[in-house]
Amino acid sequence: MIEVEAKARAPEDAEERILQMGGVLDGVENHTDIYFRSPVRDFASTDEALRIRVKDDGVYLTYKGPKLDSKTKTRLELSIRVDDAVAAEKLLESLGFSRFAVVRKRRAKYRLGDAIVALDNVDGLGRFVEAEIPADRDNPTDRARVLEIISSVGVGRPIRLSYLELLEIARSSAAASGNAGESPPKSEP
Amino acid sequence: MIEVEAKARAPEDAEERILQMGGVLDGVENHTDIYFRSPVRDFASTDEALRIRVKDDGVYLTYKGPKLDSKTKTRLELSIRVDDAVAAEKLLESLGFSRFAVVRKRRAKYRLGDAIVALDNVDGLGRFVEAEIPADRDNPTDRARVLEIISSVGVGRPIRLSYLELLEIARSSAAASGNAGESPPKSEP
Repeated sequence: MIEVEAKARAPEDAEERILQMGGVLDGVENHTDIYFRSPVRDFASTDEALRIRVKDDGVYLTYKGPKLDSKTKTRLELSIRVDDAVAAEKLLESLGFSRFAVVRKRRAKYRLGDAIVALDNVDGLGRFVEAEIPADRDNPTDRARVLEIISSVGVGRPIRLSYLELLEIARSSAAASGNAGESPPKSEP
Repeated sequence: MIEVEAKARAPEDAEERILQMGGVLDGVENHTDIYFRSPVRDFASTDEALRIRVKDDGVYLTYKGPKLDSKTKTRLELSIRVDDAVAAEKLLESLGFSRFAVVRKRRAKYRLGDAIVALDNVDGLGRFVEAEIPADRDNPTDRARVLEIISSVGVGRPIRLSYLELLEIARSSAAASGNAGESPPKSEP
């Protein structure tokens, strides 16, 4: 399935905006997302991702393909539900994949016509709004629609970077400013 | 989990033998096993396997580690239940794994004390008996027990080759005898 999707920073009144547009709260979820490195390719370069998501209602193993256009986050997404997060991680490790990051967030989901709008509060990053339309194929109508929702609810320009990438940027900035003082750079443990 | 396991060819009266030993029929299952190649290692050389098993009661993704001793088929086995065989295969393909063989069989399962005894009828190979004791670790007691069951029920020596390996041997023998006549060897399609 293709995930036609866009994202932006969310202002304080993001929920009000969604409700005023006709959005209906569909539920609140806690996500713990475990990301894996591939033994074959550098997923950061190929713009792919492999993730185990632990939600309140179950565990999902998901592959995301490279983004398909230059403005939205539209991409192939393959997801299967699995019965055991620990066994799934051990299985991936046996195949050569290795955990390298965990992203935690609280997501409020709204239905808005054929779109799903998510207000995310991401540990270490803050609040974002994502709009998504599940589709059989990438198409300009759905792309325009998710960008329109994002521009009405969000602030600033659409963000194509994943939470994982944003967290890595935040961490490297923190490390850089931490090392800007007189203390020498920390060596690797 | 460790799967302490042994296997042998099954005679015509294998079921009678199992029942006489006190075995209790636990159910009959149809298995379609799809085996995958790894993009990283040659699983045939490393004695590993990655498989999607489609059973009547669900779909399982399983990794099997190298065998741990020289007589039985004891090995690490990691298995998770997944909700969709087609999506699971697409996900594996996206990660670089590729389907290379399918093994189909009908399995009658019996409980015999702490062991599970399976009478398998494998498409293209015939009848086999497998005895398995799920264990926390490899141990000589369970190993001796599965070998004892196999020698009571089966015929011939224990077989450590998988059905997949046996099928490949059967196919290459058939190909060799097919090419023994006057017709030239067939070229690859």
